[in-house]
Amino acid sequence: MRRRYDRATVEFGRVLAFSDGLFAIAMTLLVVSIGVPHLSDGDSVGDLGDALNDLSPELISFFISFAVIGRYWLAHHQSFSLLEAMDGAFIGLNLIYLAFIAFLPFPTALLGEYFENPLSVALYATNVGIVSGMEVVLFRHAYRRDLLRRQPTPEIYRFGVLASLSPVAFFAASIPFAFLSTTLAVAIWFLVVPFGILAERRAPQGADQLLGG
Amino acid sequence: MRRRYDRATVEFGRVLAFSDGLFAIAMTLLVVSIGVPHLSDGDSVGDLGDALNDLSPELISFFISFAVIGRYWLAHHQSFSLLEAMDGAFIGLNLIYLAFIAFLPFPTALLGEYFENPLSVALYATNVGIVSGMEVVLFRHAYRRDLLRRQPTPEIYRFGVLASLSPVAFFAASIPFAFLSTTLAVAIWFLVVPFGILAERRAPQGADQLLGG
Amino acid sequence: MRRRYDRATVEFGRVLAFSDGLFAIAMTLLVVSIGVPHLSDGDSVGDLGDALNDLSPELISFFISFAVIGRYWLAHHQSFSLLEAMDGAFIGLNLIYLAFIAFLPFPTALLGEYFENPLSVALYATNVGIVSGMEVVLFRHAYRRDLLRRQPTPEIYRFGVLASLSPVAFFAASIPFAFLSTTLAVAIWFLVVPFGILAERRAPQGADQLLGG
Amino acid sequence: MRRRYDRATVEFGRVLAFSDGLFAIAMTLLVVSIGVPHLSDGDSVGDLGDALNDLSPELISFFISFAVIGRYWLAHHQSFSLLEAMDGAFIGLNLIYLAFIAFLPFPTALLGEYFENPLSVALYATNVGIVSGMEVVLFRHAYRRDLLRRQPTPEIYRFGVLASLSPVAFFAASIPFAFLSTTLAVAIWFLVVPFGILAERRAPQGADQLLGG
Repeated sequence: MRRRYDRATVEFGRVLAFSDGLFAIAMTLLVVSIGVPHLSDGDSVGDLGDALNDLSPELISFFISFAVIGRYWLAHHQSFSLLEAMDGAFIGLNLIYLAFIAFLPFPTALLGEYFENPLSVALYATNVGIVSGMEVVLFRHAYRRDLLRRQPTPEIYRFGVLASLSPVAFFAASIPFAFLSTTLAVAIWFLVVPFGILAERRAPQGADQLLGG
Repeated sequence: MRRRYDRATVEFGRVLAFSDGLFAIAMTLLVVSIGVPHLSDGDSVGDLGDALNDLSPELISFFISFAVIGRYWLAHHQSFSLLEAMDGAFIGLNLIYLAFIAFLPFPTALLGEYFENPLSVALYATNVGIVSGMEVVLFRHAYRRDLLRRQPTPEIYRFGVLASLSPVAFFAASIPFAFLSTTLAVAIWFLVVPFGILAERRAPQGADQLLGG
Repeated sequence: MRRRYDRATVEFGRVLAFSDGLFAIAMTLLVVSIGVPHLSDGDSVGDLGDALNDLSPELISFFISFAVIGRYWLAHHQSFSLLEAMDGAFIGLNLIYLAFIAFLPFPTALLGEYFENPLSVALYATNVGIVSGMEVVLFRHAYRRDLLRRQPTPEIYRFGVLASLSPVAFFAASIPFAFLSTTLAVAIWFLVVPFGILAERRAPQGADQLLGG
Repeated sequence: MRRRYDRATVEFGRVLAFSDGLFAIAMTLLVVSIGVPHLSDGDSVGDLGDALNDLSPELISFFISFAVIGRYWLAHHQSFSLLEAMDGAFIGLNLIYLAFIAFLPFPTALLGEYFENPLSVALYATNVGIVSGMEVVLFRHAYRRDLLRRQPTPEIYRFGVLASLSPVAFFAASIPFAFLSTTLAVAIWFLVVPFGILAERRAPQGADQLLGG
């Protein structure tokens, strides 16, 4: 017997509450790791300025991490609003997705500390690529098991899968380039934005139900 | 197509659950950073008293941080009770607001440690000013996109914006004064309270729907 | 205009969600502070046994803290089930209550480390006493502002206040005794249990709506 | 008077929200303990690779811990979907269950660091065994107090108890074997999976309501 939890059930709500809690923790935790600097002369503006300057990678890392996980939370909020129901397998896939959300603060911190190192760029791209890939897996499962509120046409479905897969392709492609130049690799990440706008223009009619956020 | 989530939807509730989780974490986390002191003679009242005395900036910092973030949670709870619906942009603006809530424990800890340093006073005033400023941005967006339960008259709206902007003005004004005297700068912050009471007296009729908490 | 949020509103639910999140974090955080020991010979049962033995105050402290905060969560869950509505002042009082819940891990850790020190016993008793005292303040406010689902008779109300105040009295009384003997002070805490059972036997008819959990 | 909270009440929902928050925190916290390595030459791929290699026990430990607690969350989600109501004692038992969920990150970290040490294997098996045992206690209480949506037949009930007790037996049995060989002990844990599949095949008709997830 396959379990199926409709939108109005307590069980549907629990998956969202659990996901939201996990997102909120992953986004807030990093501030703890920013230690208050220890100064011999606490009243000197120059000394505290220098200390805050030394902390700037951690400070920038906090806001980048918040923005990246926040962007995924927006996408999660938006795509789960399309669901009519969840089944057991979908809930399990959502957990795998969340594992890589919960892990994201680590490669973000690594990238903040070692921005010039190809390995930290590659690890970050891998993590972000897996998260985007899991979005496709979740969407595909929801489509196949008829969990969506309005079942898209096959054409719109294919468009949705390709639109979600494109960031995965960009992140994967950036990894070998990171070993030539980390700046080049990060530049490839930013190509996701104009590509997404282009893709949206060529979207089949009715695909707007999958986009936005 | 613009997305719009009404008060009764699962999606409206998720934004609140996510915000509440983030507030709760930001308010609770600081207690972890208060390390238990290590004493050679654990049974001596004098030694533990001295150690707790040394910890007093962290202890005070915890309660101040809890009070400040708690006050913003009350304002969030109160102002979001005026909403009939949220759209995608409002949810995104709420995330930016929450980023500065999540960051607040850091300047609070800095202020607890370096109260006499103008830089920590300036950083704290900047953070708190941004949070109050984002409240105005959220309110303005809700007004313009017709997201409020009872649309205020233009006169009440202008009053609401000015009432919310005044703390931003006080916090911004305090920053240059911090470099003369940090006590003076903090005194300016406390002017927000009597000013708010004065403003409330001059409020146009019907504005009480925006006030309180 | 006094705000009042009924049981069915989104705003009533937010206060509960926020409180539950804060309780959950305060109860879970302590496990992070239990560091994994570092051994030179990782395979030796004796060495790891010794290291775990050294950690036993932290381990016991985690479970005691979980039990104490868990007991307050049960009381919060039980007493808030009596509410028909909340007003703004009640929500503010609940925040003050939660501040001392969030702080509780610190005196608990201190007590775990310095059980023989009168100061850590006194600090713990003070914190727990304030939490129990705030329960009385919340109940009194709900009674006076007519926020309860079934308004108790004045006789039942007086009984409820006294039943809730008695732990405060025991905790306060234990503080001077802690400076004679910490074991004696802790023994006084445990008198709360038989006293509570005795009080329940003398409860006026209909008071069972306030008890249990 | 025995309290009973039906599925539709605010109080039923609070227990779930509290449990979900606690699960989410326990699953996310571990990432904080993975410190970013400090390198003298931050741009060297080899140095960062070595440092990440040294961190691999922490990294593996994070994902194992996430998977183990995630699996218990799935079981919690699934088994609580069978409930029609909760009473006070059930809520208290759920708290005891959650205490051992919140503690799980510690033995997991210990196992990640000292996989060859029988003591860490024994501690982990004990913790996991208690969690599985508490699942049986919760199910038994729900059955006896008539808290389930569809009351199972005595035959199905007995099957459910035995199916849930079998992991406890395997974990308990593994502890003495850990002192011979930790690999052997862990191998015994994995027997839970094929045994579960065998048990499911011999399940009495109608028992599928208790299985799955």
